[in-house]
Amino acid sequence: MASAMTCSAADLLPHLGNSANATAAAEFICGRFTAVSEYLSNTTYAVDSTYLLFSAYLVFAMQLGFAMLCAGSVRAKNTMNIMLTNVLDAAAGGLSYYLFGFAFAFGAPSNGFIGKHFFGLKEFPSQSFDYSYFLYQWAFAIAAAGITSGSIAERTQFVAYLIYSSFLTGFVYPIVSHWFWSADGWASASKTDGNLLFGSGVIDFAGSGVVHMVGGIAGLWGAFIEGPRIGRFDRIGRSVTLRGHSASLVVLGTFLLWFGWYGFNPGSFLTILKSYSDSTKGTYYGQWSAIGRTAVTTTLAGCTAALTTLFGKRLLVGHWNVVDVCNGLLGGFAAITSGCAVVEPWAAIVCGFVAAWVLIGFNKLATKLKYDDPLEAAQLHGGCGSWGIIFTGLFAKKEYVNEVYPGFPNRPYGLFMGGGRKLLGSQIIQILVIIGWVSVTMGPLFFLLHKFKLLRISREDETAGMDLTRHGGFAYIYHDEDEGSSMPGFKMTRIEPINTPTPDHHHNRSVAV
Amino acid sequence: MASAMTCSAADLLPHLGNSANATAAAEFICGRFTAVSEYLSNTTYAVDSTYLLFSAYLVFAMQLGFAMLCAGSVRAKNTMNIMLTNVLDAAAGGLSYYLFGFAFAFGAPSNGFIGKHFFGLKEFPSQSFDYSYFLYQWAFAIAAAGITSGSIAERTQFVAYLIYSSFLTGFVYPIVSHWFWSADGWASASKTDGNLLFGSGVIDFAGSGVVHMVGGIAGLWGAFIEGPRIGRFDRIGRSVTLRGHSASLVVLGTFLLWFGWYGFNPGSFLTILKSYSDSTKGTYYGQWSAIGRTAVTTTLAGCTAALTTLFGKRLLVGHWNVVDVCNGLLGGFAAITSGCAVVEPWAAIVCGFVAAWVLIGFNKLATKLKYDDPLEAAQLHGGCGSWGIIFTGLFAKKEYVNEVYPGFPNRPYGLFMGGGRKLLGSQIIQILVIIGWVSVTMGPLFFLLHKFKLLRISREDETAGMDLTRHGGFAYIYHDEDEGSSMPGFKMTRIEPINTPTPDHHHNRSVAV
Amino acid sequence: MASAMTCSAADLLPHLGNSANATAAAEFICGRFTAVSEYLSNTTYAVDSTYLLFSAYLVFAMQLGFAMLCAGSVRAKNTMNIMLTNVLDAAAGGLSYYLFGFAFAFGAPSNGFIGKHFFGLKEFPSQSFDYSYFLYQWAFAIAAAGITSGSIAERTQFVAYLIYSSFLTGFVYPIVSHWFWSADGWASASKTDGNLLFGSGVIDFAGSGVVHMVGGIAGLWGAFIEGPRIGRFDRIGRSVTLRGHSASLVVLGTFLLWFGWYGFNPGSFLTILKSYSDSTKGTYYGQWSAIGRTAVTTTLAGCTAALTTLFGKRLLVGHWNVVDVCNGLLGGFAAITSGCAVVEPWAAIVCGFVAAWVLIGFNKLATKLKYDDPLEAAQLHGGCGSWGIIFTGLFAKKEYVNEVYPGFPNRPYGLFMGGGRKLLGSQIIQILVIIGWVSVTMGPLFFLLHKFKLLRISREDETAGMDLTRHGGFAYIYHDEDEGSSMPGFKMTRIEPINTPTPDHHHNRSVAV
Repeated sequence: MASAMTCSAADLLPHLGNSANATAAAEFICGRFTAVSEYLSNTTYAVDSTYLLFSAYLVFAMQLGFAMLCAGSVRAKNTMNIMLTNVLDAAAGGLSYYLFGFAFAFGAPSNGFIGKHFFGLKEFPSQSFDYSYFLYQWAFAIAAAGITSGSIAERTQFVAYLIYSSFLTGFVYPIVSHWFWSADGWASASKTDGNLLFGSGVIDFAGSGVVHMVGGIAGLWGAFIEGPRIGRFDRIGRSVTLRGHSASLVVLGTFLLWFGWYGFNPGSFLTILKSYSDSTKGTYYGQWSAIGRTAVTTTLAGCTAALTTLFGKRLLVGHWNVVDVCNGLLGGFAAITSGCAVVEPWAAIVCGFVAAWVLIGFNKLATKLKYDDPLEAAQLHGGCGSWGIIFTGLFAKKEYVNEVYPGFPNRPYGLFMGGGRKLLGSQIIQILVIIGWVSVTMGPLFFLLHKFKLLRISREDETAGMDLTRHGGFAYIYHDEDEGSSMPGFKMTRIEPINTPTPDHHHNRSVAV
Repeated sequence: MASAMTCSAADLLPHLGNSANATAAAEFICGRFTAVSEYLSNTTYAVDSTYLLFSAYLVFAMQLGFAMLCAGSVRAKNTMNIMLTNVLDAAAGGLSYYLFGFAFAFGAPSNGFIGKHFFGLKEFPSQSFDYSYFLYQWAFAIAAAGITSGSIAERTQFVAYLIYSSFLTGFVYPIVSHWFWSADGWASASKTDGNLLFGSGVIDFAGSGVVHMVGGIAGLWGAFIEGPRIGRFDRIGRSVTLRGHSASLVVLGTFLLWFGWYGFNPGSFLTILKSYSDSTKGTYYGQWSAIGRTAVTTTLAGCTAALTTLFGKRLLVGHWNVVDVCNGLLGGFAAITSGCAVVEPWAAIVCGFVAAWVLIGFNKLATKLKYDDPLEAAQLHGGCGSWGIIFTGLFAKKEYVNEVYPGFPNRPYGLFMGGGRKLLGSQIIQILVIIGWVSVTMGPLFFLLHKFKLLRISREDETAGMDLTRHGGFAYIYHDEDEGSSMPGFKMTRIEPINTPTPDHHHNRSVAV
Repeated sequence: MASAMTCSAADLLPHLGNSANATAAAEFICGRFTAVSEYLSNTTYAVDSTYLLFSAYLVFAMQLGFAMLCAGSVRAKNTMNIMLTNVLDAAAGGLSYYLFGFAFAFGAPSNGFIGKHFFGLKEFPSQSFDYSYFLYQWAFAIAAAGITSGSIAERTQFVAYLIYSSFLTGFVYPIVSHWFWSADGWASASKTDGNLLFGSGVIDFAGSGVVHMVGGIAGLWGAFIEGPRIGRFDRIGRSVTLRGHSASLVVLGTFLLWFGWYGFNPGSFLTILKSYSDSTKGTYYGQWSAIGRTAVTTTLAGCTAALTTLFGKRLLVGHWNVVDVCNGLLGGFAAITSGCAVVEPWAAIVCGFVAAWVLIGFNKLATKLKYDDPLEAAQLHGGCGSWGIIFTGLFAKKEYVNEVYPGFPNRPYGLFMGGGRKLLGSQIIQILVIIGWVSVTMGPLFFLLHKFKLLRISREDETAGMDLTRHGGFAYIYHDEDEGSSMPGFKMTRIEPINTPTPDHHHNRSVAV
C-alpha cells in the first residue's frame, strides 16, 4: 500500500545537499511521511474491516430470512422442525467452520483441491486473513445447508438432518469454495499463479454456483430419494398444492433475504478502499463505485424477476400471488449472484427476466416428474443459480472483469460482449463440476441414510406433524387450553412432576385437559 | 478536496533555492504529498460510500417494516393483497426509478421543474452521483407509494394499484423531489445558483413533505374517492373499528421502521467525512457529530410522540393500546423528518409532543368526516408530516442551518429562534405546493379509475376478502384441511392436473375436501 | 492524535538553513503536513462514528428482537401487554436517558458513585463524548428493563411496569454502568486515575453484569414477590408448562437478538481506527482485528451453548426443542458478553458449553423452588451473566487485556491463563455488588408495589388475559367476526358513536356481534 508515499531519508538526502543539516531535514520530512503512510494503512484496515463486518452481519441476517421463509412455506405442524434446522445451520456451522471448514476452504497454500491451514483459526490473524473474513465466510457457509433443508422439509428425520448438514457444511461446501474462490483453487478467476482455467477461470463472484447450486443440488438428491410428501400428488397423480401456513412469514423472510443480499453480493468485494488506477474515468471512480453498481445490478435483477413472475403467473394461473412473486424475486437474486460485479445494470434486467422463466419452467418440470420440493429450493437455487453462471459467461463486461479480477489484462469476458467463448466455457465447467461433486458426495449419503431407514419419518409422524411427535409441541397456541378448543394441537400441555429424583420424569407427556 | 495539501513542485522550488538539487527535492516532496492527497481522496469516497450504502440498506428495510405494519393493520382476509403491493412498490419502483424516475428527480441541469439526465443510469457514475446515491434515492422513492397503499387498503382493485403506484413513483414523486432536493430545484435550500426562494429555500431535510406528505395526500384522495370499507361506519353512521389482524406484525413493522429511520434521517447527510471549518467548537465537531445529533433528534421525537399518545389515548379511550402507541411513534418520526438535522434535541421533544396530538386530532376529524384510512396514513404521513414542515420553520437553529446548508451565511432560520419569517414562509409554500401538485395529479387519476370502474372491488370480493378471490388463497393455514376445520379459508386447496397440455389447466380451483 | 506527523516550521527551519527561503520552505512543507494531519483527524472521527452509529442501530434492533421473543414466549392473551412494555422501554428510556440517565452514568468527573454532568445533553458534543456515544449507550440502557419485563410477564399491572421501569432505566442501571464503565467509576478497569480495584478493576466489556445481571436480578425480585402465574404449578405442586403462543416469534426474536449482539459486543470497542502499537504482530493487526475476534468469540459461545442445549435437553427431556435451543443460545451470548474482547475463540467455546448447563441447572432449581419466570430471564440473564463474569476472571488473556485496557502493563488477567487471582476477585466483587445494589433498590420497590396492591393483576384479568381487559383487545383476529366464530376474543369490536360531544364516548365497549 501507499508505495508512492514511501519516503526514505537516504533518497531525499542528496537532493537537499548532503550536509548535516540536510540529513536532519530529510529525516524530519521522511519521518512525517512515514507516519502518514502508517496512519493511512491503519485507516484502510479500519475502513475495510468496517465494511466487511457489517456486510457479514447482513449475510447473517439472511439466515433469519431463510428461517422465516422456510417456516412460512411449510405447514404449521412442521414449523418447529424446520426452524430448528435453520437455527442449527448457523450454530453447528459456527463450530465446524471454525474447527475445519474454513481451513478446507481457504487454507492456502494447498494442492488446489482442499485447503490445509488455519484449523481452529490457528495463526490468525495473518497478512492474508483477519477474523472479519472468517466471520463473513462462515455466514456464507451456513447458507448452503439451509437451502437443502428446504428441499427435504416436512418429511425428513432430524437425525438425517444432523448428519447431512454437518457433512455439507463441513466438507462438501468448503471444498467447492476452495476450487472457485481460494487464491490457489484450480478454477479460481483470481488464481495467484496466473495459471487460469482456459486462461480465464470461473467468475462466480458471490456464489450462484458455490453457494446456491451446491445447496440446491444437494436438496435435489435428498428430495428425490425420499420422494414427495404424503398428499402432494393424489391417487391419480395430480399435483395438490400443500400450501405453506403463513404468507406473512414468507414475505418477512423474502424481504430479510433481500436486505441480507446487500451483504452477500456487494460485500463479496471484501474491501471498499481501493482505487482502480487504470480506469479512464475520474478519480471519483473506484471500488466503492463498483460496489454500488453491484448493489444496483442485484436490485434490478430481483425486481425484474419479481415483475416477470407477477405477470407470467397471472397469465398462467390467473392469480396475483405474492408467494410466487417472492420466489421469483429470490430466483432473480440467486441468478445475478454470479455476475453481479461484472455486468452492466441493463444486463441485470435481462438476467432477472430469464431467471423468472427458468424458475417457472423448472417448477413445471418438477410437477411433471412428481418431484416435491416444499421451498422450490432445487429449482430456485439450483436452476436459477445455473442460469446465472451462464449469464455471466455471456454478459460479463471487459472493463469490469479487469477491475474486479485484476492482473491479467487480456483475459476473456462475456461472449455477447465480444469476449470470446473461454469464459463461457469455464462457467459451463463450473456447472458440470458442481453437479458432479455434489452428486457423488451427497447422493450416496442420502441413499445410505435411506437404506438404513434414517432418512424419512414414519407415516404417522408425517400425518400428525413432526412438531407434535418430535419437537415438543405445536408451534402456535392462539387460544388457551381451558377455552374449550377441540383441535388436537391445542390440547397438548406439559406437566413436570416435582419431588421426583430420576431424570426420566422430565419427559413430556401429552395430557388431555 | 484537500486543497490545503496541494503541493506543486513549481511553488516549492523557489523556496529550496532553484538548483538542480532543489528541483529534484521539490519533486520528491511534492510527489509524496500528491500521493497522500490522492489516497485521502480515495479514503473519503470509500468512507462516504460505506456510510451511504449501509444507510440505503436501512432505508430499504423500512419497506419490510411497512409491509409488516400494513399486513398487521388489515384484516386477515386481505393480507396477501396488501403484502403484494408492498413487494411491488420495491420491485416496480426499482425498474421505473432506474429507467426514468431518477432522471426526473436529479437529472440536473434542468429547467427547475423536472430533471432530464441519467435515464437508465446513462453516464453513471459521474462527479456528482455514484451508484450508491441512486440506490439511496430509490429506497426513498418506493416509500411514498407504500404510504398510499395503506390508505386505500382492503377495497382497491389490484389493477388500480398497478396504475397509480407506477404514476406516483415514476412521475409525481420524482418531480416533487426535484423541486426540493435537486441542486437546481426551484425551492431547494441548497440551490447552487444562490437564487433561493424567499432568500431561504425550503428545508425538508429527509422528506416530511417530499416523501410523507406526497404519499399521504395521494392516499387521502384515493380513500376519499372510493369511500370507506363496508362496515366501517354502521347504519346510523357510528364508527366501527375494523381492527387489524395481528398486533405482533404491527409492532414488528413499527420497530423495523424505527430501525430503518436511522438510515432515512441521519443518512440524508449523504456523506459523513466532512469538517465544519467555520465551527467555533473543537476539531472533534464535524458532520459526523451532526449525523449523530440527527439520530438523537429523530429518536427523541418518536419517543415523545409515543409517550404522549400512550397517556393521551389512555385519558381519551381508557386503554393502554400498543397499536395506538406505534402509530403515535411513527407520527413523531414523520414530523421530525423535515427538521431533524437543524434542530436541537430539546426541540425534537416539542416536535414529537405536538405530532401526537396532531395525529389524534386528525383521526378524530377523519371519524367525523367518515373518512376511512386503514393505516391512518393520510392523517399520520400527511398530517404529522405537515406539522413537521412548520416545526422546522419555527425551531431551525441558525448554526445548524448554516452547517447543513452552507454557502449563504445570512440565510433565514427558525422564527422562534430569532431567524425571521422567511423560512417559515418557504415551509408553508412547500405544504401548499405539495397539496396542490399531488391533488391535481393523483386526484384526477383516482377519479378516472373510479369512473372506469377500475378503483373499487366488488361487494362480494370485499366481503370474502381479496386473498381468497384474487390472490391465491387465505394467507394463513394453522390447521390441516383434513382435521375437519369448518372455516372457509381452510378449505381451499389447489389441484393441478397432470398430463394436460393447455395452460388453462393451471388455473386454481377451489375444491372442498 | 497523529503526533508523529506534527510539523512545526520552527523545528524544520534550522535543518533547511535558516534563510528567508528556508522559512518559506519550512512553512510550505509544514503547512501541508498540518493539513494532512487535520484531514486524518477528521477521517478518524468519520470512520469511528460510522462504526459506532451502525453498531448502535444494531443494538437498537435487539429491542425488536426482545419484543418478538417476549411476545412469542407468552400466551396469546397477553401479547399486546408485553409488546407495549417493549415499545415503552425504548420510548420512555429515550426521554429519561436524555434527561438524566446518561448524566448519572457518564457525567464525569464524579464522586465515583454517580455522574453529574451532561443532563439533557448539555455541553454536547465534547472532546470526550459525541451524540453517537449517547445513542449507543441509550440502546444499552433500554435493554435492561426489557429483561425484567420478561420475568414478570403475564401477571403484572401496567402501572407497576411504568414505575419500576422508569426507576430501573433512569436510576438503578445508570449507576451500575457508572461504577464499571465510566472513566472514574470506582470499579472500572480503565479508570483514568490508575487507582484500580485490586490493581485490576472489573472487566465487564459489554455488560454481562452491567446489563444482563441487572435486568435479571431485578426480574428475580419482581417474579419472586408476585409469585407464579395461575396454573403454573398444579394443585399438588407439579410444574405445568404454560407454553408461549408462537415459536415463530421466538425464533424471529432470537435471530434478531443474535444479529443485534454484533452491535452489542464488537460495538463496545466504540472505535475501530486504532493501532495496537505494542503488538508484536504485523501492522495488519489492530483494533479492527480485535473487533473481528470479538464477533467470532460471541458467535462461538452462542453456537456452542445452542448445541449443548440441543443434546442436553434431548437427553433430559426427549425432544429436540427449538425454543429451548434458542434460550440456550441466548444464554451463551449473555455469558460471553463480559469477556468477549479479551479471550481466545477456543475459550469462548468453553464459555458457551458451561453457560448451557448453567441455564439448565438454574431452570431446574427454579422449578424446584416454584419460581415462575415466563422468559427464563432471571436464570438466563442473571445466571449465565454471572457465569460469564467469572469466566472472564478465569480465561482473560494477558495480551488482549493489555490491548483493550491499555496503560497498565502489569495488570492481572485470567487465573487459568497465569494471571493470578486479582481479576477473578474483582469479578466476584462485581457479582456481589450488583446482586446487592439491585436487591436493595428493586427489592423494596417491588415489595412496596405489592403492599399497595399495584403489582399483580386481579385473578379475573389474569384468566381472561390482559389484552382483552386492559389493552384494547386480543392481539390476533384471524377470522372475521361475521364468520360466526364462537371464541370470546373474536367477538370484540369497538363502536365509536358519532355526534357526541363528550370525550367519554370514546371509551371502548365490548359488543357481541
